[in-house]
Amino acid sequence: MNSSFDRQMVLAAATETSNQAPLVLLGVILSLVVIYCASKLGAECSNRLGLPPVLGELVGGVLVGVSALHLVVFPGEGMDGTHSLIMQFLQLTNGLSPESVNPTFSATSEVISVLSELGVIVLLFEIGLESNLSELVKVGPQALVVATVGVAIPFLVGTVGAIALFHLPVHSSHFAGAALTATSIGITSKVLSELGQLSSTEGQIILGAAIADDILGIVILAVVASLAKKGEVDVSNIAYLVVSAVVFTSIAIVFAKYFNTAFLAVANLFSTRGGLIMTAVVFALIMAYIGAAIHLEAILGAFAAGLVLDETEKREHLEELIEPIADITVPIFFVTVGAKTNLGVLNPFIEANREGLIIAIFLITVAILGKVATGLAVFGYEKINRLAIGVGMIPRGEVGLVFAGVGAASGILSDALNAAIIMMVIITTFIAPPLLRVVFPNPDPQP
Amino acid sequence: MNSSFDRQMVLAAATETSNQAPLVLLGVILSLVVIYCASKLGAECSNRLGLPPVLGELVGGVLVGVSALHLVVFPGEGMDGTHSLIMQFLQLTNGLSPESVNPTFSATSEVISVLSELGVIVLLFEIGLESNLSELVKVGPQALVVATVGVAIPFLVGTVGAIALFHLPVHSSHFAGAALTATSIGITSKVLSELGQLSSTEGQIILGAAIADDILGIVILAVVASLAKKGEVDVSNIAYLVVSAVVFTSIAIVFAKYFNTAFLAVANLFSTRGGLIMTAVVFALIMAYIGAAIHLEAILGAFAAGLVLDETEKREHLEELIEPIADITVPIFFVTVGAKTNLGVLNPFIEANREGLIIAIFLITVAILGKVATGLAVFGYEKINRLAIGVGMIPRGEVGLVFAGVGAASGILSDALNAAIIMMVIITTFIAPPLLRVVFPNPDPQP
Repeated sequence: MNSSFDRQMVLAAATETSNQAPLVLLGVILSLVVIYCASKLGAECSNRLGLPPVLGELVGGVLVGVSALHLVVFPGEGMDGTHSLIMQFLQLTNGLSPESVNPTFSATSEVISVLSELGVIVLLFEIGLESNLSELVKVGPQALVVATVGVAIPFLVGTVGAIALFHLPVHSSHFAGAALTATSIGITSKVLSELGQLSSTEGQIILGAAIADDILGIVILAVVASLAKKGEVDVSNIAYLVVSAVVFTSIAIVFAKYFNTAFLAVANLFSTRGGLIMTAVVFALIMAYIGAAIHLEAILGAFAAGLVLDETEKREHLEELIEPIADITVPIFFVTVGAKTNLGVLNPFIEANREGLIIAIFLITVAILGKVATGLAVFGYEKINRLAIGVGMIPRGEVGLVFAGVGAASGILSDALNAAIIMMVIITTFIAPPLLRVVFPNPDPQP
Repeated sequence: MNSSFDRQMVLAAATETSNQAPLVLLGVILSLVVIYCASKLGAECSNRLGLPPVLGELVGGVLVGVSALHLVVFPGEGMDGTHSLIMQFLQLTNGLSPESVNPTFSATSEVISVLSELGVIVLLFEIGLESNLSELVKVGPQALVVATVGVAIPFLVGTVGAIALFHLPVHSSHFAGAALTATSIGITSKVLSELGQLSSTEGQIILGAAIADDILGIVILAVVASLAKKGEVDVSNIAYLVVSAVVFTSIAIVFAKYFNTAFLAVANLFSTRGGLIMTAVVFALIMAYIGAAIHLEAILGAFAAGLVLDETEKREHLEELIEPIADITVPIFFVTVGAKTNLGVLNPFIEANREGLIIAIFLITVAILGKVATGLAVFGYEKINRLAIGVGMIPRGEVGLVFAGVGAASGILSDALNAAIIMMVIITTFIAPPLLRVVFPNPDPQP
């Protein structure tokens, strides 16, 4: 309760006890103000330069994050509360005591992290609503082929190249290859939506492939991680992942119309304010929970939820309602991705980075060409923009950062390789949005 | 990042390291699902019984909270992670390890608490938008008188009665009196909004008085707390509070039209999606921060932000955009208030409660009659619903709980008095919404 904390603060001042609870709320409020300003300024500049707004949100995140202003930073990598300018501001102006800096910082960061995760859940739910289930099913085979090629080529070329060219250990090379397979659904789908290309055939193939890619990526990561840890593949775990992915997707597609009927029946029950939006949000959250609980991803569940509701008669109204919610939650995600990106790895004056830079050039080349090549694998369409499909698969984004993080946590990556993987993720993430605008024919700035 | 946690979960399964981070997200998702279901079912039942929906949300909160189902519980009062059914569910189905239950529980509770605080900020911003600044200024003198009478009578009668009738110590009696002064802006304004009475003269007087009451309450609490702690009043602290309240309110009122102009100028700068809502949200957050930073309240700042924007030409559009955001954030606040309410104090089979019950009967009588009497203090209007104004000031809600909490933390309240204060808060909170529906002439259920 809000009032509670403020009154406790008054009491704390009066009785000199130290209750720092209100400061978490203040930390969150300040972080949100910084995040919103960074995202809107970034989006606006980017749009005026003819680039996709989401690129500006990422850059805005970099500016306020660990690489530059240190306004929005997160624990880890030697960061603690004393590095956060927001915590310093709270110390100066709100009597945050030095010993409470770190607990307040952790709690604030935890809240912002969860809000950013909820943001990408809302984003994928919205993308699901904007997508068309039957259209997506129609391009299903193409999407699967694109995803498979886009996973296989970068993984094989990346792994073999790392071993042959740079004489890296086999298990490290597997991680480098695995990191190359990722595609960021969040960034790709947001750019497509901004370009008005989400419902084009190319857009639907990219979206379907990015989703299949995400599932394949989870499987690859499980294989690589268990190889690195145990020296062998944990077959039962892999089988479980594959089966749960197939079952989840099948149920969502086959029972879509029943979900629709049940959804409308429940939403129509309510006579009080907010019945429709709340039913939709609860449905999305439950599907996100199921997606995460079966060890796929929360965002896949949220996307499936949006997708099965896309034929609801209330869809248009629902899209209107979800829009302002997305407007204030999704930027938290993109700015957080930017804020967590440490551009320090690009600094050639640091020794480890120099070796990393050479590996990075190789990885970036494979990352771009390997995904662009996937466009050639599309069959059954004569006049299709194969280049756009390939380019749409390029951004590694938050997914690539995770692969890098998992590799780093396993302890088998050298500093140079680790830096190279992060560089590859950064470059592919930041060049994909402008490239997509170039390869799609009608690059009108958002009205 | 969402993906991060899921993939780390796969790795955790594969490498048997224990990374519990994703479980905070899952805990938050499950808590939100429970909160939304409780609020919507409660609101719906309440509305069909001809009662205000918000009463149902509070009752729904009680059902899922510490008093009954233990689905949404918060640390403190002997509660830890092992009492939370959601944590038990995560242990059963998502491999939450026993030693991680408490950290996950704390982090999840922290996130839900902050979301609930953001919820009441959104609520007061929305109420501010729906209110009319010039109308509120017009009823200002009446509101001030109502608030003053509504603070003075309960405080004096409560304190003197506690000393004279129950022979309680002076400082404890001060706390009992102070707790009687509170008025819950959140509950009162929500019920008025549901009844369509927010813009009536009565509604505006109640709202203005509830706000003045909130500021007076902060001052009274500071006085009582410093009396209990130091045996004397900390004059400089009290003077600071009074001055900052007056300055803050004056600036908001006098510069309202400049805020409007500046707001529109900024919002019109943006060509990308979400410019209007984000400008409004950033403005509300900054005002909430200022409200809290000067030791008033975040919600007062948010209310002022809504109020000064109420004459913006984009107000109607803004109200449409804020509505779905309020629909999914405000219920978190009301359910949390209900969930934190421990009905155990009403149990007459517990020894301390029996003594408490007798004191409670006295406090509840003073609480109701003392506020109803304030209606008589309204001057300058012949045909005004004085009873409605008095009844509108009855609910103590979250504000009353805080007074009780501060008293309990000071250690000078006996168990019986503490229980009695909480009983008074519960009863006044739960009877006010149905009473308000009775005293306002057109109790149509929401369409």
